[in-house]
Amino acid sequence: MTLIVQKYGGTSIGSIERIKNVARRIAKFQSLGYQLVVVVSAMSGETNRLLALAKEAQNNPNPRELDVMVSTGEQVSIALLSMVLIEMGVKARSYTGAQVRIHTDNAYNKARILNIDEDKLRSDIDAGYIVVVAGFQGVDESGSITTLGRGGSDTTGVALAAALNAKECQIYTDVDGIYTTDPSIVPEARRLRTITFEEMMELASLGSKVLQIRSVEFAGKYKVRLRVLSSFEEEGEGTLITFEEDENMEQAIIAGIAFNRDEAKVTVLGVPDRPGIAYQILGPVADANIDVDMIIQNVGHDGMTDFSFTVHRNEFARTMHILKSQVQPHVGARDVVGGDRIAKVSLVGVGMRSYVGIASKMFRSLAEEGINIQMISTSEIKISVIVDEKYMELAVRILHKSFDLDQVP
Amino acid sequence: MTLIVQKYGGTSIGSIERIKNVARRIAKFQSLGYQLVVVVSAMSGETNRLLALAKEAQNNPNPRELDVMVSTGEQVSIALLSMVLIEMGVKARSYTGAQVRIHTDNAYNKARILNIDEDKLRSDIDAGYIVVVAGFQGVDESGSITTLGRGGSDTTGVALAAALNAKECQIYTDVDGIYTTDPSIVPEARRLRTITFEEMMELASLGSKVLQIRSVEFAGKYKVRLRVLSSFEEEGEGTLITFEEDENMEQAIIAGIAFNRDEAKVTVLGVPDRPGIAYQILGPVADANIDVDMIIQNVGHDGMTDFSFTVHRNEFARTMHILKSQVQPHVGARDVVGGDRIAKVSLVGVGMRSYVGIASKMFRSLAEEGINIQMISTSEIKISVIVDEKYMELAVRILHKSFDLDQVP
Repeated sequence: MTLIVQKYGGTSIGSIERIKNVARRIAKFQSLGYQLVVVVSAMSGETNRLLALAKEAQNNPNPRELDVMVSTGEQVSIALLSMVLIEMGVKARSYTGAQVRIHTDNAYNKARILNIDEDKLRSDIDAGYIVVVAGFQGVDESGSITTLGRGGSDTTGVALAAALNAKECQIYTDVDGIYTTDPSIVPEARRLRTITFEEMMELASLGSKVLQIRSVEFAGKYKVRLRVLSSFEEEGEGTLITFEEDENMEQAIIAGIAFNRDEAKVTVLGVPDRPGIAYQILGPVADANIDVDMIIQNVGHDGMTDFSFTVHRNEFARTMHILKSQVQPHVGARDVVGGDRIAKVSLVGVGMRSYVGIASKMFRSLAEEGINIQMISTSEIKISVIVDEKYMELAVRILHKSFDLDQVP
Repeated sequence: MTLIVQKYGGTSIGSIERIKNVARRIAKFQSLGYQLVVVVSAMSGETNRLLALAKEAQNNPNPRELDVMVSTGEQVSIALLSMVLIEMGVKARSYTGAQVRIHTDNAYNKARILNIDEDKLRSDIDAGYIVVVAGFQGVDESGSITTLGRGGSDTTGVALAAALNAKECQIYTDVDGIYTTDPSIVPEARRLRTITFEEMMELASLGSKVLQIRSVEFAGKYKVRLRVLSSFEEEGEGTLITFEEDENMEQAIIAGIAFNRDEAKVTVLGVPDRPGIAYQILGPVADANIDVDMIIQNVGHDGMTDFSFTVHRNEFARTMHILKSQVQPHVGARDVVGGDRIAKVSLVGVGMRSYVGIASKMFRSLAEEGINIQMISTSEIKISVIVDEKYMELAVRILHKSFDLDQVP
């Protein structure tokens, strides 16, 4: 028999009605001959309710006790789903993270899974039970409850799939897969049947919120096939995240286009082109706990250069202040300029490795529409450009069309 | 160091404000040099909320899964109380029933405690921690979560006090002790400083809702000193439930007066006075799952007798129907009569054993006020009478005064 792990998020089980839909899907898979382990999150809103209650009790809640508390959210979910399954005549049994034993380190609130005892689950699975496991939680060596941090339920699903050697881990969410880009901007955006692990990592880091980046890393480490599907659709095969490029049947050059307008750019103009200058500029920024994304320094001339980087838009004012008050006088820069009306647009695809001319085609397409590129940054499977915010949607649409992303390759 | 177990019910911890009051009391006891294990229930309303949610999922919720679900109520409470204590600078650590290991049988929803691993708690206590334990729950041999049924938190408290050999188990509730009778009926009702275990058992079975009868039984079995106190008062020593009569400093003849109007009486008139008649009458009633309380059969004459008993008022109509349709024709009784406008008034006290004339004094007092006694039933430490419902309060007041219950003995 083939074993599948399915994970349902808080929205998918946000009410008893929705839990019944989930139960019907599980029963259908079972009737098709699959064995199933099902991981669930807390019902939507529940974790936030518990966090708020904890904050009433203690300004800065004790990490161990906070995990005792918030882990009850998933515990309620596993019981409810099991009851609904049993009511439908399906054999089901729930397990908390501690009951499975999902062993973690003792970093409360952000614990990491160390290993999983699969014996108990295995015997229930073999006895025909649907095993319902609480996501997001585990137990440390001393028997204390731990949680994996936000989005940890995806990680639980992947870890169980790895431990039980499941055929795949299906992540049910409120979208039906990974798209070439956001369909609300490009109506022709197309669901990808497959995407490589590396592409998925880039898209996740670029702000695609479908999967938690940690669960994707985990899947990569243990070579678990991940599939993203919608819990609100009857049919649909979602998007499969693969690990072998030759598994990628579509052979797409570009997987998709990511974008975000959460960033701001700053440039320190006319700084002496000498060793240590990057550290002198970025050190005070890092000391202020400001995350830096893109960093660009071009070849200098006449012993001077310009140094640019992007930060989160919320940090723009603070960053400008640090640069003007601390960095500029210290390094003797000519000026500090910046802007927060920018957007980042990124082309992602493993095909870039083997095809030349992707970058030039991207720049030409944007130029033909009169879109000025302010900054460029590239990695092996990604090209990102910064453009004026007002051109963001246009840039995404043009690139989607230029690279024929609406066509099945 | 002296160890005390304290148990706080749902009302005592119904809000963060109330939890803070509880925490202050705990800190005060600790500063007086006591070691403390604290047992808490779910916050008031929480268990009912969870039960309602379970019923939405399954008409008749699966017992195992129901326990997984409702046990989260206490789990939230232990985390909140621990956080509040830690915020106050008091070392505290929470334990679920499964974490302590409170071993129970696997009778989900109404499990019985088999034994308790006290090692982990002991080492925390010795390290200066306030140990906060979830009441009402345990774990069976297979690692499944169990609950002890309603009111089980009292039993958890008593069981922990027994396992840890605590000096006493303090049950904090919304009343400040056990009274000679209900102060809302007799303003002169007096709080008892001590009451014997047997008297407490009788009062509990007569409807006094202060303590769960199972926890009192448990305390009796393991000789745990129980004390009932108010969680809403700063001071007060409550009522101590003792096991040695000579510990009972008050030497009261009568401990208190209990009453209830939940009963109805039925009488089968003119039944043949022959062996087996009681079974022939009560058999069909028991088969219908109707609980019978008092049973009275007087000496017969002319080969005939009358047979009376009381049932819960809600079962009156059903009982009358069974008697008239099944019992009367079968045993050849003359008639079946009954009434549900009655009340039971009971005098309870271990002193009855050594003092004669208690019953006659009781009957005389009632007669002097023109209160007719319809039925009488006695045990070693209790005399119960059935009177017309409208005389209930009057009867209680008269007896309270006749036996000088407002005076410290």
